[in-house]
Formats: sequence, C-alpha cells, structure tokens
Amino acid sequence: MTIIEVTRPLARWIVSLPAASIPEPVKQEGVRTLVNWLGCAIGGSPHETLDRALDAVKLFAGPAQATVIGRTVRTDALHTALLNGISSHVLDYDDTHLKTIIHPAGPVASAAFAVAEMMPVSGADLLTAVILGMEVECRIGNAVYPDHYDRGWHITGTAGVFGAAAAVGRLLGLDERRMTWALGIAATQSSGVREMFGTMCKSFHPGRAAQNGAFAAFLAQAGFDSSERGIEAPRGFANVLSTKQDYGEILDGLGERWETALNTYKPFACGIVIHPAIDGCLHIRGELGEAVRDIEKVELTTHSLVLELTGKTAPKTGLESKFSVYHAAATALLRGDGSPTAFTDEMVLAPDIVVLRGRIIANADKSIAEDSVGIAVTMNDGRRIERFVRHAIGSSERPLSNAELDAKFRRSSEPVLGVMATEAVLKMALELRPGGARLRWH
Amino acid sequence: MTIIEVTRPLARWIVSLPAASIPEPVKQEGVRTLVNWLGCAIGGSPHETLDRALDAVKLFAGPAQATVIGRTVRTDALHTALLNGISSHVLDYDDTHLKTIIHPAGPVASAAFAVAEMMPVSGADLLTAVILGMEVECRIGNAVYPDHYDRGWHITGTAGVFGAAAAVGRLLGLDERRMTWALGIAATQSSGVREMFGTMCKSFHPGRAAQNGAFAAFLAQAGFDSSERGIEAPRGFANVLSTKQDYGEILDGLGERWETALNTYKPFACGIVIHPAIDGCLHIRGELGEAVRDIEKVELTTHSLVLELTGKTAPKTGLESKFSVYHAAATALLRGDGSPTAFTDEMVLAPDIVVLRGRIIANADKSIAEDSVGIAVTMNDGRRIERFVRHAIGSSERPLSNAELDAKFRRSSEPVLGVMATEAVLKMALELRPGGARLRWH
Repeated sequence: MTIIEVTRPLARWIVSLPAASIPEPVKQEGVRTLVNWLGCAIGGSPHETLDRALDAVKLFAGPAQATVIGRTVRTDALHTALLNGISSHVLDYDDTHLKTIIHPAGPVASAAFAVAEMMPVSGADLLTAVILGMEVECRIGNAVYPDHYDRGWHITGTAGVFGAAAAVGRLLGLDERRMTWALGIAATQSSGVREMFGTMCKSFHPGRAAQNGAFAAFLAQAGFDSSERGIEAPRGFANVLSTKQDYGEILDGLGERWETALNTYKPFACGIVIHPAIDGCLHIRGELGEAVRDIEKVELTTHSLVLELTGKTAPKTGLESKFSVYHAAATALLRGDGSPTAFTDEMVLAPDIVVLRGRIIANADKSIAEDSVGIAVTMNDGRRIERFVRHAIGSSERPLSNAELDAKFRRSSEPVLGVMATEAVLKMALELRPGGARLRWH
Repeated sequence: MTIIEVTRPLARWIVSLPAASIPEPVKQEGVRTLVNWLGCAIGGSPHETLDRALDAVKLFAGPAQATVIGRTVRTDALHTALLNGISSHVLDYDDTHLKTIIHPAGPVASAAFAVAEMMPVSGADLLTAVILGMEVECRIGNAVYPDHYDRGWHITGTAGVFGAAAAVGRLLGLDERRMTWALGIAATQSSGVREMFGTMCKSFHPGRAAQNGAFAAFLAQAGFDSSERGIEAPRGFANVLSTKQDYGEILDGLGERWETALNTYKPFACGIVIHPAIDGCLHIRGELGEAVRDIEKVELTTHSLVLELTGKTAPKTGLESKFSVYHAAATALLRGDGSPTAFTDEMVLAPDIVVLRGRIIANADKSIAEDSVGIAVTMNDGRRIERFVRHAIGSSERPLSNAELDAKFRRSSEPVLGVMATEAVLKMALELRPGGARLRWH
C-alpha cells in the first residue's frame, strides 16, 4: 500500500516558504481580502449576535491582548479571534472562494490579527501569514468539496480551522513538526453544520474556527502533540468528514497555483448564490422606476443551489432573510438595496416586501450556471420584462475593482466609526500593501 | 412527511425533571461515577499532557474561578473544564458506557464541577446536573452508535459536548428554549476523530467537549440562538455525523430507562477492549509466579475490536502503549500490573517487556464477546496453560464494588495528594451521596 503523506509536506511548505516568493498579484489579492475583511468586521460589529457573544465571553475573558473590532473592548487573543470572526461574517457580506463557497478571511484574518497584537509582527509578515492560511484552507476545501459540503458541513468552519492554525503557526514560527501537530489539532476540532444557517451559529463557525485554529497553534508550540497524519489518515479529517479525498488539490503546485488569488468579494450582504438575482432585479428596478409597485409576478430561473440554500419563503428574522431568494429579489426591486440594510429584522416585516415576496416564484434549471439567473417580471397590466444575467457582479468574471472595494469599506464602516476614523483605518489597511509602510500591531 | 422533534423535547426534559424523581440506584451510580472521575483526574493531573496544555492556556486564562484538579492553579471555568477533562481521561483509566464506548464523566463532570465553583450550587443539584448530562450524552451516543463510531468519530468528544451543555444548562437554570439552543450550539461544535488515539489529542477530546459544551450553555443563557433542531435536522448532528439515527434511543423512556445506571469503571488504565486480556494474564501470572520469565509464546483469541483499536505491536510512548494489547498482556504477565504504571514511557522501553511483546500473537474470533478472551501460553519447556475469561473484571457482569472503587481512588490519588488529603477528598466526594451533607463549591 502506498502511504500518501499530506499533513507533513503541507506543514513543511507553510513553515518554509520564503515570503518573497509569493507573487505580486497574490499579495495584492491578499490586501484586497484584508481590506474587505476589516470593513465587514467593522460593519458587522454592532450586530446583536456580537452583543450576545460578548455577554457570554466577558465572564471568562483573559488579558486584554487584542482589539475587538468596532467595539471599545479588548480581550484575550483567542476570544478576540472568535468575536472578530463573528463580526466579519454576520452580515454575509464577506469574501468567497467560489470553487468551495468558503469565506476565507473570517477564520484566518480574525485569528492572525488577534495574535499579531500579542507580539511584534510587521505588516508584511502578517500579510504572508494570512495568505498562507487562506491557501491552506482553500486547498483543503478543494480536496473534499463538494461531497463534504453536500453532506451538511459548513466548510468555512471545517476548513477554516486549518487556515487559522496555519496562519498563527506561521506567525509563531513553528517548526515543521509542530506545524504538523497544529494541523492535526485543527483537524480534530473541525466542526460546524449547515443546519445553523439563518441563526447566530452561522457566524459562530468562522469565529470558532479562528479561535480553535489559533489555540491549536499555541498548543503545538507548547509541545502538545497530535497525530502527524491528521488530514489523510483513515480516521483523519478527510476520510471521516468526506467521501471525496483529492489530496492533489492540497499538495500539487504549492507556491505556483494560488487559490488565494481567486478570492472574490460580495457586493450584496447575503448568500452568494442569490447575487445574480439581486444584480438582475436592481437593473430591472433601474428600468421600471416607481412602476416596481405594479409588479404582479416575478419568475426566477436559477441554479439548483439557490433553492437548496436560500429557499426560505417566509423568513422571520434578518438573519433568515439572507437565505431567502424571495426576500432578496423583493428588496432589490422595491428598495434598490442588496446591502446589509436590506436584511434587517424590520425589513423582513415591511408590508410591501412581504406582499411582493409572495409573488415571486423560483425554479431550478440545470442549464443555469451558479453566477447566472433568468428573470421574468409580469406587470399588473400584462407587460413582461425579461433579463438574463450571465455573470453576476462580484463573480470571477466581474470582480469588484479596488475602487468598488474601497467604496464598500466606507459603506460598511462609516455608520459605525464615522467618516474620519473610517478613512484612517482604510489607509492603515491599504498600507499593508507590499511596498507600503511597515505596520506594527502593538 | 412526519417531522420528528428531538432536540426540543429532550431540552424540555432536561430543564423540567424534578431531581426527586431520579431513582435512588441512579443517584448511587452517579456518585460512583463522580468518585471515579475525581480519582482519575487527580491521578492524571501530573501528566505531561496537562503540563503542555497549561503552558498554552496560561497565555489566555481568564479569572481564577475554578480549581485545576491536582494542581495549585485556578483559572476561568471554561479552561478549567478543558484541563480537568484532559486529566480525567489521560490515563485511560476512567469510566465506560459499554453500549457506546463513551467515557461519560470526562466531558460532563469536568464542565459541571468547574461551573459549580462560580455560583452557589448544592451537592445534590450538582449530582442531578451530572446525571442528566450523562444521560443526554449516552442517549445521543446510542442513537448514532455504532455507525458514527465506525466512521471514525471519537464518540466521547462528539456526544460529550451535548452532555456538558445539558449539565451546565441545568445548573444555570436555562428555560426550554435556551436549553434547545444550548444543545444546538453543542451540535455544531461536535468534533474529535479517532486518528488521535495514542496522542495527547485523545484526552483533549473530553476536555474540549467539556469546555465547548459549557460555553454553549453560557451562550444560550446570553440569548445566542441556534437552530432548534440541532440534533435531528437533515443537516444537523445525527445526519451529518452518522448514517444511523435512532431517535427512539434519545426520547423513549426518558426518566424511566437510565443509561447513567449502566456506567462501568475501568480496573486497568488502557483501552477497555484489552481488559479481558489483562484480567486473564494477571490470573496466569498468579499461577506461574516467577516462571513467567520462561514464556515462549502467548496466543490471544479476542473480539475483533481488540485488533482494530489496540493492534499497535511496537508502541513508542506510554500513551501509545495503551493501544497495544501486546504491551498490556506483557506487563500483566511480567509485572502483574494493569494500572497507570504499566503504561509509562519507561515501561514501553523495558527490555523484557519488549521481548515478550514480540512473542504475543492475537487473533480475532467472531465467537468471542467484547468482555471475553481466550489465552493460551506456551512455556519454553513445551507446557501449555490455557485460560478463558468470560466476563472481564469491571464489565457489567463483574462491576467494581464500592470498596474496589474507593481503593482505586486511593491508588490514583495518594501518589499525587498524599494519604491525608486523599482521605479528605474522598470523604468530600462521598458526601455527594443523597442524604450526605450538602456541599457548597465556592
């Protein structure tokens, strides 16, 4: 029997890759990821989900090592990783690795930033750690997707814990053996089920992945051992949590092919599979203007995942509404909005939204790609408007520009921090760009 | 489609069961469980695994709310739950629910005791919470065992997190809805793979289950919500982590049939499937005396799980040796020992043990029950000694008596705490018995 080694060679790569060998476009995408992550975390920080998490955390919090983003609170780095991971994901407005539907930054950046406040770390080293963590997370995701996801695992949590361990392990300068242990300790904490979508536990997943992955790295640093085959063993992560195990996705072309470079950023604050429908409905609203009040019926022709993931016809809370293609289409048509304000508890109850939601039908069609949608609107007077979106905004084919990302950052941050602080934080984040000022996080 | 509700009715039972309705024998078994758990945690507390965990924890530790057993350290209740869970399991000397191979006390008692130090809790209420937590844990285990375990899940971790959430939720007085959330938050943290057996991560599993389950209860108390169908939903715990889902095992006869009453306690400090072999080898040593040095060959006829779980022929560490039926049989024959001192790093390297290990053969036989073994010893002079163990000591048919449990407690505790403190702690634990003094943990 050929024994394929996966965990150890992956660990070797994480600890030994020279930062200078990371290609410039990958570094640029890393910075775009961090700017987007930080904006999302600031924007999500006032959310009730974080209030409740903080109420529980404050009973047990350790030393004030790191900053809870958007709050006037500092706590220990592990709890900070949890809380910032929650904030960055709670609006479903973050980033997406489209091949796996992993939201890469939440687990990785939340862990790395919190730990970076405990020690002297340059901006360049922090960026390297985050890029490596995302690469590990997305490659492990590729190895098990789609079977793993189809079984019901929330892959952002289950793969994210490896990314957080890798990023923090790199910051701590673990040797190969300890990095192997860190990945093993991550493997045995991998968790999070899709049943939690639409509840506070959804954003708990990237938060907990950040916290658990970071702790795995600190345990390994302290000499706490694990199996050295945590990923590939017969009773390790990939075999226990998936029926597919493609280890080539993890090991092939390390340092050459970069999953990190494929990251995308959400223009709308909800499940990414609804984005084509919002994009198309916003365009139809642009055509119809106030006549959107005279819509009799909307027929959506979508990819099958849209109904599987976002088929809630009568959402009861803002969080649930992010998993309702009906709600998203209604708010895009009636309010011209796909931002976080379209998915609040109040908007869910707005009478005109409730009425229009009930007039929207969605049908899955195998010929429709994930980033496409067909929309047919029938007006009260019988008129029909049709629109086909081939590639939704924010997809790989229509990525957000740097200017659009900056604008998204401002939209998220200004209501929380105000204009001046928003500009200062954005400038600081942008300076992580290679060639920018070296930044110290303490 | 009939929608079977599981999580909510289970939560309702946990929060509403009158303590007085728990039958006396169940309470007695609960006390036996706690005495055994406490002795194991004291005995395990000097282990290197705990040293290393403490090195990582101390960086992030919160307020000194609870006692790290056997150490002069207090830390926040969540980290205490983790550390005591590790200590109680690290010697593989704890308790076993034989139907599922769950070690029930580690996750549940470690969580409940740590939290009980934060608030006024009577001994009787603490006992009730632990009994309910164990019941929840073992019933959820029954619902998915054996498929879940066969897939590679370490069921003490995956089911234990529910038990910890239930016990702590009961102590906190959660209402039905919040207990439902606590079970859901537990469900989405359920983790731990069997690949970690033989490493420090094995005892990490009950520790983390205790910590995560406790945190789930505090989050729910703070209003952090989850799915209310965390156990039974199509993408909830039972469907994602198992191919078997027998919900009757969870709900039928609640308060009448008690899994807690079936708990057993290990007489030997290793995987329970090896116990028949140790039991038999100790008897053979009794017959042979010093002639054990003249053994040419030992043939074991065992249940198939023995080879699957404990087939390590050449263990390299004390922890690994607990998963070697060869090592266990050799130390029983040559040292007359199945206690923690038989499974140390030094014993693994002892030349006579290494030689005898190599002379032991084990064959699985479908006709052999899990608590049985056949042993045939061939001496250098050609003489053969055979022994068949029908029910190993510590099994349901040959349970440890209270006196044997007290003796085991003393054996575990005296090397750590000394004789006087051992007697004081044992007395305190025994007073949890119904009718004993009310004990305050603060």
